[in-house]
Amino acid sequence: MPIVDNIRAIRWEDNQLCLLDQRLLPQQEIWLQLGDYREVAVAITQMVVRGAPAIGVTAAYAMVLAVQEMRQFSDWQQRLAGAAAEIKAARPTAVNLAWATDRQLTLAQSESAADRAATLLLQAAHALLEQDIADNQQMGRHGAALLPEQGGILTHCNTGSLATGGYGTALGVIRAGISAGKQLQVYADETRPWLQGARLTAWELQKDGIPFHLNVDSAAAYLMQQGLIQAVIVGADRIAANGDAANKIGTYSLAVLAQYHQIPFYVAAPLSTVDFAMPAGEGIIIEERPDSEVRQCASHDVAPEGVKVRNPAFDVTPAALITAIITEKGVARADYLHSLAELCG
Amino acid sequence: MPIVDNIRAIRWEDNQLCLLDQRLLPQQEIWLQLGDYREVAVAITQMVVRGAPAIGVTAAYAMVLAVQEMRQFSDWQQRLAGAAAEIKAARPTAVNLAWATDRQLTLAQSESAADRAATLLLQAAHALLEQDIADNQQMGRHGAALLPEQGGILTHCNTGSLATGGYGTALGVIRAGISAGKQLQVYADETRPWLQGARLTAWELQKDGIPFHLNVDSAAAYLMQQGLIQAVIVGADRIAANGDAANKIGTYSLAVLAQYHQIPFYVAAPLSTVDFAMPAGEGIIIEERPDSEVRQCASHDVAPEGVKVRNPAFDVTPAALITAIITEKGVARADYLHSLAELCG
Repeated sequence: MPIVDNIRAIRWEDNQLCLLDQRLLPQQEIWLQLGDYREVAVAITQMVVRGAPAIGVTAAYAMVLAVQEMRQFSDWQQRLAGAAAEIKAARPTAVNLAWATDRQLTLAQSESAADRAATLLLQAAHALLEQDIADNQQMGRHGAALLPEQGGILTHCNTGSLATGGYGTALGVIRAGISAGKQLQVYADETRPWLQGARLTAWELQKDGIPFHLNVDSAAAYLMQQGLIQAVIVGADRIAANGDAANKIGTYSLAVLAQYHQIPFYVAAPLSTVDFAMPAGEGIIIEERPDSEVRQCASHDVAPEGVKVRNPAFDVTPAALITAIITEKGVARADYLHSLAELCG
Repeated sequence: MPIVDNIRAIRWEDNQLCLLDQRLLPQQEIWLQLGDYREVAVAITQMVVRGAPAIGVTAAYAMVLAVQEMRQFSDWQQRLAGAAAEIKAARPTAVNLAWATDRQLTLAQSESAADRAATLLLQAAHALLEQDIADNQQMGRHGAALLPEQGGILTHCNTGSLATGGYGTALGVIRAGISAGKQLQVYADETRPWLQGARLTAWELQKDGIPFHLNVDSAAAYLMQQGLIQAVIVGADRIAANGDAANKIGTYSLAVLAQYHQIPFYVAAPLSTVDFAMPAGEGIIIEERPDSEVRQCASHDVAPEGVKVRNPAFDVTPAALITAIITEKGVARADYLHSLAELCG
């Protein structure tokens, strides 16, 4: 079955960063044109763009805008370091944001000429985008081999073209599985509070003709109980050296439920998501996002005014619940401390 | 701590059934006045009133309206049986709906005089409402003893005054615990797709001054992992003779998660919820509600048009995952086949 893979949500045009505004999908397809790195940082915070790999690529381009602005100053490297700190502060959990920003900063600091640095950073950003897509396609091939010949695959949040440079991580594995002729039926968690599943994954799967059903997050256990789910596959925002994986709130819940129902639970993420400096998941900072995301639904009030809310944006799934971690370099299995490091070596 | 318990959502006034329209809470507090049993059946289907015990009480009053309409006909008993079938068809899962309707029908059929039957049915409906509140208060006392002296209590859907004649089942147990001086912090699942938690439980807890936080359903596992939850307590729409319990979608998920985190999982429901004719949960019909409930959030489109949806309204939690079933007559524990029957005996 040929899989359409035309969705790209990040592009560089006329010396501006163009982002498909994911806050407005699926009702409106509006592109924002950003010429200032500060606007890009705000766009990341406000989730115009989201998904750990997509945030990484976006940050790399934000650094291009920053160096273009700073190159007129003699202390441009110092100013660029300040811009990098601002960009990294946009969201705390995904490792890719800091990783891509620091990578660009190091590259810039290796050059004494600002103009040359600007050229290098733009080339590096383009290369990062292309590499991300190529890595996702590799990841897809490695992961597709793990999926059954037919059956239901449950996924959470959005891990597709919209969450990456293109093709996707967990959704890329599903794309690759279907391209390889597997008869897969996707079950997409709607993923409250931000509804990445209902708004983005549904939009993407519909565009690409991948068969799926949408369900509320709390129905996942029921679908497993009914025998409809043969594998769960999710992305990750940060993976500790021991394999503990931070991902969208609700992921940990799925991992516990999958173990209970003896269903394999896969994490698909590029190796850049692995934070080897973080020994275990306890150290990962979990972003608490605004109360309004829970008090509202699709930007409309649902809960009474003034109610207190707990709104953790992520949770950490212990490595022991993860059947395998699928990367662009191959599949890691426990113990992850060694298998992840080996893939990098 | 004195607990306010002023919320009542079902009342009989000027020979009409008045229902607080739960579709509009918490933004608007609008009462519907219904004088025709058919309107009441529609109100049940459309969830003006919901919650198994509240549906039971509502159905009892619907039968009053039906007998008042039919008493002019010589074949009023036959016509009443037809009305009973219509009322029972309003929603399939909750046992209380059929139980209360059949109880009224049997009572009517024991009378040859239609006028006398109408009087009896009205008295019986009032008695059912009062008994439901009294039973919930009893249930609360039995259940409160099981709760810790302090800690977090996770609940799902709405099981309070709005879901019953008044006081509530699972929320009644929490009310009783707080009245008994326990320092409880409620965590309320928002309960997609209908958001009973965000709209109704939050409204009710806020009105009654009970401390709580609202969270998305998929954050429950995270809250447990963080040690914030000392007990889970939910209601039930139908309990099989062996203790398997059907309740709002997401309940089964919480039961699996509670077991994994070694947290007690309680079901609070009146004995009328137990369907002794149903040997096990597999036999319980799970209502699939309209796709639009998932495609929309707070009546606004979120998912793209035309996406396929799975929208089971309930799931079944196996008895093995239930620590205890709290009823008005006392607390049942495994094996439930005997303990539930004993409470009825």
